[in-house]
Amino acid sequence: MARVSQEHLDARRRQIMVGARRCFARNGFHATSMQDILKEVGLSAGAVYRYFSGKEELIEAIAEEAFSVLHDAFDEAARQSPPPLPDELLGYVLRQCFAGTGFDTEREFGQLVLQVWGETTRNEVLGAKVHAAVTMMRAGWTEVVKEYQRQGIMPDDVEPEYAARTLMGCAMGFIAQQALFGDLEIDQLQQGLRGVMRMQVTGAS
Amino acid sequence: MARVSQEHLDARRRQIMVGARRCFARNGFHATSMQDILKEVGLSAGAVYRYFSGKEELIEAIAEEAFSVLHDAFDEAARQSPPPLPDELLGYVLRQCFAGTGFDTEREFGQLVLQVWGETTRNEVLGAKVHAAVTMMRAGWTEVVKEYQRQGIMPDDVEPEYAARTLMGCAMGFIAQQALFGDLEIDQLQQGLRGVMRMQVTGAS
Repeated sequence: MARVSQEHLDARRRQIMVGARRCFARNGFHATSMQDILKEVGLSAGAVYRYFSGKEELIEAIAEEAFSVLHDAFDEAARQSPPPLPDELLGYVLRQCFAGTGFDTEREFGQLVLQVWGETTRNEVLGAKVHAAVTMMRAGWTEVVKEYQRQGIMPDDVEPEYAARTLMGCAMGFIAQQALFGDLEIDQLQQGLRGVMRMQVTGAS
Repeated sequence: MARVSQEHLDARRRQIMVGARRCFARNGFHATSMQDILKEVGLSAGAVYRYFSGKEELIEAIAEEAFSVLHDAFDEAARQSPPPLPDELLGYVLRQCFAGTGFDTEREFGQLVLQVWGETTRNEVLGAKVHAAVTMMRAGWTEVVKEYQRQGIMPDDVEPEYAARTLMGCAMGFIAQQALFGDLEIDQLQQGLRGVMRMQVTGAS
């Protein structure tokens, strides 16, 4: 039997994931069958089942890859001293995330994210992965907010984790709108967020 | 045949919707069968199919009710002159939305919203309803942002619709985090948003 290089195995695995992503984004996780995925990637059942036992394992692998790209992008940007302002940081992470995962469109990325979120209630493995990833992002954002406070650009009377959740929420809401409409630009989110950051309001948090 | 009051019909219809919401939030739209819903509401198939032809019609009715509550709450708050600041407006609308729809928990509400979002790619009727509702919310928020600008509390160089999308995104991201974790408080979002609104940053948008 011919030996197959690791490179070839990785490329094949990725090819299957990309096809599955397309199917899930287009038709939703549940309405996609393994047959649909085989057809999309143009491989036999034997070739695909060698890598993935089924749809559950596929969506878990897809989510894991996206989280890993997301996490690396955030880490790289947040490590800077001082860290970029929220609009720059969010924009950078979203752009890297789209680029690094190689989805066909930003909307497809958003649609896949919605499928992953929707599956967390039923799929415990996926739920645990999403929980771990979001918890890590929260911790990262919380550190960034503390740094903003040390620099005097974020009010001291705000609980850093709450500001972190709000900023993460901005990104999550952007992804949801992108999935529902496909007509949003990251530039628009950044400009809108800069507007909110520069509001002229007084009083305590 | 006994005549049945409209009141009775409405109450029964609502009872079915509440049971379906619970099932969809718990197991997801696709993994829920009409049998599960019949069991949850304790009614016969005949009684349920008199009101809804199936799951599609149920999720459409559930989404429609939620949008109607959301829209009324936003309208009521945004009509004030001057309109409340973003943190107050978002908090008010989210609270009214939870209270007015009568979900068992805020998390259940969030989980249902994720199911609705995830279904929009496949279900065109639902997609059109979500699109119409979000478009209306965007227009409403855009007017509010313009009013902030007239009052000098939002910088003039921000495109109102972008700030509107960002603020709506905050609420959508909050709902998503609520669905995934169930550990967020509206107060926390409000405090976090107030922090972002009060950042000390300079320069143009």
